[in-house]
Amino acid sequence: MSSKCQPCGPGRSVVELTIAIHYVFNAPMDKILWDAGQHAYAHKILTGRRSLFHTIKQKNGLSGFTSRYESEYDPFGAGHGCNSLSAGLGMAVARDINGRKNRIVTVISNWTTMAGQVYEAMGHAGFLDSNMVVILNDSCHSLLPKADGRPKMSVSAFSSAVSKIQSSKGFRRFREAAKGLAKWFGKGMHEFAAKIDEYARGMIGPHGATLFEELGLYYIGPIDGHNIDDLICVLKEVSTLDSTGPVLVHVITGTENDTGGNMRSEITPNDEGPPNSSHDLLKFLETGLSRTYNDCFVEALTAEAENDKRIVVVHGGMGMDRSLRLFKSSFPDRFFDLGIAEQHAVTFSAGLACGGLKPFCIIPSTFLQRAYDQIVEDVDMQKIPVRFAITNAGLVGSEGPTNSGPFDITFMSCLPNMIVMSPSNEDELIDMVATAAMVEDRPICFRYPRGAVVGTSGTFTYGNPLQIGKGEILVEGKEIAFLGYGEVVQRCLIAQSLLSNFGIQATVANARFCKPLDIDLIRTLCQQHSFLITVEEGTVGGFGSHVSQFISLDGLLDGRIKWRPIVLPDRYIEHASLAEQFDLAGLTAHHIAATALTLLGRHRDALLLMK
Amino acid sequence: MSSKCQPCGPGRSVVELTIAIHYVFNAPMDKILWDAGQHAYAHKILTGRRSLFHTIKQKNGLSGFTSRYESEYDPFGAGHGCNSLSAGLGMAVARDINGRKNRIVTVISNWTTMAGQVYEAMGHAGFLDSNMVVILNDSCHSLLPKADGRPKMSVSAFSSAVSKIQSSKGFRRFREAAKGLAKWFGKGMHEFAAKIDEYARGMIGPHGATLFEELGLYYIGPIDGHNIDDLICVLKEVSTLDSTGPVLVHVITGTENDTGGNMRSEITPNDEGPPNSSHDLLKFLETGLSRTYNDCFVEALTAEAENDKRIVVVHGGMGMDRSLRLFKSSFPDRFFDLGIAEQHAVTFSAGLACGGLKPFCIIPSTFLQRAYDQIVEDVDMQKIPVRFAITNAGLVGSEGPTNSGPFDITFMSCLPNMIVMSPSNEDELIDMVATAAMVEDRPICFRYPRGAVVGTSGTFTYGNPLQIGKGEILVEGKEIAFLGYGEVVQRCLIAQSLLSNFGIQATVANARFCKPLDIDLIRTLCQQHSFLITVEEGTVGGFGSHVSQFISLDGLLDGRIKWRPIVLPDRYIEHASLAEQFDLAGLTAHHIAATALTLLGRHRDALLLMK
Repeated sequence: MSSKCQPCGPGRSVVELTIAIHYVFNAPMDKILWDAGQHAYAHKILTGRRSLFHTIKQKNGLSGFTSRYESEYDPFGAGHGCNSLSAGLGMAVARDINGRKNRIVTVISNWTTMAGQVYEAMGHAGFLDSNMVVILNDSCHSLLPKADGRPKMSVSAFSSAVSKIQSSKGFRRFREAAKGLAKWFGKGMHEFAAKIDEYARGMIGPHGATLFEELGLYYIGPIDGHNIDDLICVLKEVSTLDSTGPVLVHVITGTENDTGGNMRSEITPNDEGPPNSSHDLLKFLETGLSRTYNDCFVEALTAEAENDKRIVVVHGGMGMDRSLRLFKSSFPDRFFDLGIAEQHAVTFSAGLACGGLKPFCIIPSTFLQRAYDQIVEDVDMQKIPVRFAITNAGLVGSEGPTNSGPFDITFMSCLPNMIVMSPSNEDELIDMVATAAMVEDRPICFRYPRGAVVGTSGTFTYGNPLQIGKGEILVEGKEIAFLGYGEVVQRCLIAQSLLSNFGIQATVANARFCKPLDIDLIRTLCQQHSFLITVEEGTVGGFGSHVSQFISLDGLLDGRIKWRPIVLPDRYIEHASLAEQFDLAGLTAHHIAATALTLLGRHRDALLLMK
Repeated sequence: MSSKCQPCGPGRSVVELTIAIHYVFNAPMDKILWDAGQHAYAHKILTGRRSLFHTIKQKNGLSGFTSRYESEYDPFGAGHGCNSLSAGLGMAVARDINGRKNRIVTVISNWTTMAGQVYEAMGHAGFLDSNMVVILNDSCHSLLPKADGRPKMSVSAFSSAVSKIQSSKGFRRFREAAKGLAKWFGKGMHEFAAKIDEYARGMIGPHGATLFEELGLYYIGPIDGHNIDDLICVLKEVSTLDSTGPVLVHVITGTENDTGGNMRSEITPNDEGPPNSSHDLLKFLETGLSRTYNDCFVEALTAEAENDKRIVVVHGGMGMDRSLRLFKSSFPDRFFDLGIAEQHAVTFSAGLACGGLKPFCIIPSTFLQRAYDQIVEDVDMQKIPVRFAITNAGLVGSEGPTNSGPFDITFMSCLPNMIVMSPSNEDELIDMVATAAMVEDRPICFRYPRGAVVGTSGTFTYGNPLQIGKGEILVEGKEIAFLGYGEVVQRCLIAQSLLSNFGIQATVANARFCKPLDIDLIRTLCQQHSFLITVEEGTVGGFGSHVSQFISLDGLLDGRIKWRPIVLPDRYIEHASLAEQFDLAGLTAHHIAATALTLLGRHRDALLLMK
């Protein structure tokens, strides 16, 4: 297993904890929820998936996340890292309503405590007082990022012993009795008892304990997450408690790197730890072969930030890119990494813009979904110039649907004040950074994919602001025109050359903007061709829909042009390599060319091409 | 002012606080942010808008929210009730980077503390340690809803005096000195000093104080919000403090009703306090004239819930409907009101469904935006049967763009597993409740508008589940067909009769489903007409886009049919009455009929009609 299990790394710290949980609780009757896929690897191995473990994240293999489709031992899908408490509470309430007796265990991560949803869920759990066990898997010894240098936590034999006392039936019964008495004698005594109880634990517990207590969870811990006897002892006590409300068990597993409060994930391929100096930056950026769109983006942003002191960066979502960490080290005072606090990240960016700065708010497409309301209300509706860099847009390979970004074109383009664009290659990305830096009267966003760049140029040149709402024709042909939006333009170009083998001279245009549309370009394409094929790596409702809306209202659809949209299919594309996913989605150059052949009535050629 | 200022009610409790803030701080140089529009009324009157105050929420009048467009004294728009801390922190950071000295004051409401974003923002504020003043406007004496009966807070002369000491320069300087010393002598002393400081205040402060302290804000309070001398004294001290980080001033204003932790707003016209008994329910529901879609929905849901014990209700967002409160009183154990904790509300619903219940998750369209990621990741991707009742969809009248719901068709219909529907009248709404109760293998949603019902039937009959993906033809005509989605079908019917005056017999079809589309119906309409006009009260990317996608791929757009979409315009529609908003949006029956006349080349008739 060892050689093949490189992805097992992040999950290694919870091996003892996982064993202890499965020893004490009876899955799948008892429900065990994880809010981080990479922490559920040991759980997968222990629940009948050992022989398949080498297939993890590969096409038709195990998912990198927990999945209801995969196993009855996964009662809920670990999504964006903070849903397990909410989902587990729902299951606990359903259990109570149904009169069942099974137990609910959710394992949350300490970096999850940055996300607002967890506070919403804890407040509700405390209010409902339903029985459930919340295990805080603390891998970096601090509950909240602190600037004031509070000491890291250490687990002593003493605190471990106290945890055992806290979790014992006797202690809990005493507390329950006090609760009951309070109801008879009025509020005063209960108040007093609660204070004593609270302060007693406050003196020995760490910072953070009172936070959970305030939210209504009974705090137990901290416990050494590598001492399996202690873990089993405490979990056993906790598992046998009835009608005592939600319990939070704080377990220190502590082996992961803390990258500024934000968890490393495997979203980006170059996310392998930070280079150490600006010398590394240069070296790293010069390595053309492994350059990703993210690298180019950060390079361009760094250049802009050097020239314009008003540029600041807000980063939200998981998986901070290696090159972005370099930006952080170059401009520490102008960089804000907010992790999975995306709601705050977006409104905070709006505040920065109101204060006269030029915020670039960098969030992967899938995590941008978490701040949609803030984008609508706090940015677009108020026409505040926040620049959204939407990373990992479209399909993302081995991370599968959980971290894919198929929806952003659709949900951003319907916003009235937003400029929406996407580059067809890295040079254009650099130009879009310059464009976004320039626009000061309204919000603007650009999406770009995960993965390696096209390789248009070897050396970096400064970006030039693009004219807003202007696309370009890349190849002039006739009869059929491809109008691509984003990096998929590259696949349109390949499709064009595939078609030339069949004697077809197709036109390829690069839209650049989904909003505002280049209506002159679209009119020209409609007038000079019989077929217009829009191509995007996004869902219905996005670029193609905006084009169809325009050509309908312009009368061009009334017999002038035949329009066909190529979009992502109406289903989630499972994890696989990016190339495999393009194939599954029907978005390869061959698919695009075959669509054109079919439209032209050359069905046999289309079939030949797909073979 | 008194007779005309009925909307002033909810803001009356903060009059003294508003005066104190404006006395101590120098707006607009100092930035004062409010996170609830209705609490900013006194602020509006004090900042030059007194003479216009009678126009509030009316067309071309003052907004019911703070607005950057309206006044330089409104540095940020009060949106959905929890953005001011994030935006204010952004402004504080921008101020520091720009080397300015102005002060930032944000006033948050106690019901705001249910929203996760506030915790994200507080954690970040504590981490950054930027100077800003956060005023907690506590109108219901409890910071978090508690089941264990913790006593309501009372403000004594003693605690008020202590607040003054806490806020004094001397006390704060001592604390800062301790911080500084700690840096010289190592962490130990600092830890100790912090504990002393914390516990000293913990003994006199209320519950909740430690919550804010844990998040890194310096807590001062509670202060009597109606004692203007105390308020001015404390705010003066706080305003002169330099480089001491964020301060939270807890002010008790306490006059509002607490409706289960959720704030009443004016979103729904019938939201005027709860009837007291189930006798009232009957009486209320029988009052046909004032019946709203919400009433019908709750009526249908109540009927379903009586027959099916698995039905439970989760309510998120602001403005719980009066009839919904009746449901709550009928089924207290099966009703969960989560206020503006929408992220949790959605995932919690998913958990309930996983536990075998049938959750109806009721959220106004505008607040559903706050849980988009949870809808994607925790419901749709896992194909969990949560039933979303999307209330207040489309335009909402006097609440303006802030609470309008134009985007939901677009952002829900792109989700692969979601069934998306909308009723054309109240009878169909009742059928859709039955449909949603029936579907158990996937998520389903239905949107319906604010306001009064059509009046199709006087007496309630049980709903019949609809066939999934089936619409209907309501009026058979020729040449031109309207395919309406949602309540706008009623306006299509009026347009149809307007057109008949011009000798045009239009067809009117009711789509019912945006997803899956009724492709048989659409094919029939395309084959039997020259023009197909899709009509919806939503943005581009929604119903019309899904229809155009289908008819394009089906070849029907290639000369068979001329398609025209009628959607909401690509701008936010300002507050006005619903009728005025329809007019501004070009979505009246007259607009719909005029579009048809124009398409048929009868431009003069179209102009006549619009006069």
